[in-house]
Amino acid sequence: MSRVKLIQVKEGVLAENAEKAESMRERLRGKGTFLLNLMASPGAGKTHLILETIRVLGGQWRIGVIEADLDSSVDAERVAETGVCAAQISTGGLCHLDASMVDQGLRALGEEDLDLIILENVGNLVCPAEFDTGAHVSAMILSLPEGDDKPRKYPLMFSACRALVVSKTDYAALADFDVDAVRQSVQRLNPDMPVFPLSCRTGEGVENWTDWLTDRIEKEIGPRNTPLNPA
Amino acid sequence: MSRVKLIQVKEGVLAENAEKAESMRERLRGKGTFLLNLMASPGAGKTHLILETIRVLGGQWRIGVIEADLDSSVDAERVAETGVCAAQISTGGLCHLDASMVDQGLRALGEEDLDLIILENVGNLVCPAEFDTGAHVSAMILSLPEGDDKPRKYPLMFSACRALVVSKTDYAALADFDVDAVRQSVQRLNPDMPVFPLSCRTGEGVENWTDWLTDRIEKEIGPRNTPLNPA
Repeated sequence: MSRVKLIQVKEGVLAENAEKAESMRERLRGKGTFLLNLMASPGAGKTHLILETIRVLGGQWRIGVIEADLDSSVDAERVAETGVCAAQISTGGLCHLDASMVDQGLRALGEEDLDLIILENVGNLVCPAEFDTGAHVSAMILSLPEGDDKPRKYPLMFSACRALVVSKTDYAALADFDVDAVRQSVQRLNPDMPVFPLSCRTGEGVENWTDWLTDRIEKEIGPRNTPLNPA
Repeated sequence: MSRVKLIQVKEGVLAENAEKAESMRERLRGKGTFLLNLMASPGAGKTHLILETIRVLGGQWRIGVIEADLDSSVDAERVAETGVCAAQISTGGLCHLDASMVDQGLRALGEEDLDLIILENVGNLVCPAEFDTGAHVSAMILSLPEGDDKPRKYPLMFSACRALVVSKTDYAALADFDVDAVRQSVQRLNPDMPVFPLSCRTGEGVENWTDWLTDRIEKEIGPRNTPLNPA
């Protein structure tokens, strides 16, 4: 009985959220700002991938980061150390981000002066996949130590994303992880999803990811004609 | 606005769930059956720890396992290969287990003939911590590759559990993980929580965990006077 009640409320909340998300996506597009939503399990390396993405693309795009966490600002502090603007959303224990929460983050960050905003969602392979954040693209990370059976166990997340980063490839000697098996599982759930194995520790493979992301940004908001001048 | 609505429903659901959980806990105690709820991130090694626990304690207690998953029965199949009874709960995309779902699992498994039932919750460090499953004890796993900052980021989970298993210690050479730092963070959240570093791959440290678990079972349902005769 309680499950039925929950689902009825959820559908209303999801519909309201989808409408809000679509209007945010349009607003950002109008301002030439691309929003990327990054999702993964706890400890898969979301913050580390954001830091590597800033390292590679920071000279090309004006980047901002919105970090979400249940109760701390550890990640925003790490990102701010790179000199990039970071906002922290504290969800107060909530397990996902919705469009309204992201909107608060965007307004705190100041979306006008940014080309690329990266949203680090709550570490969770379940709930965040259900809520449209207003992002132009959602991507996810699966780390080698988590195991190659995850697409079978969290199919909605693997279906909801446009790209899969397979992180921590430097753990290959220890982890019993078959990248080709993951490609095959993903192919069944989401035939067009590219898979980018990489290691943020060694840098290997990171540019395949950032090249893909650059392409997505340019398709959405157009190319940047002049490179940024580092301050 | 949608957040307020969600919270109001949630409180009613949580209260109803807590009542159901308490009555299940009593029912199991009356039958001499101990229920352990095991929680962790995806890929932290819940199923592997269950397999090791069966290996060490399977001669001492009659064990059953309830596996929860969004959409697959991968884990129950692995457990059933040991010869132990396993039931699979498919949550249909739901991010946690509540007492009613566990009750369905218990009835499918047949609680009468078992001393120890291990419940593998959905892989998620957020939502499962909020729902009483009816277990006598909840324990959690944090794996080395996830990183030692997790107690600061998922405080409710670390507060809700009675023991912390730090798994995959065989990754120590690669993972930048400080077990003492975790002990200190945990101490602040949950002063009486023991921490058991172990590797299911090498077996190192597993008996510290199973000794603690045995002690908890005996406190709840009394000691087993005669060892089991393996069939």
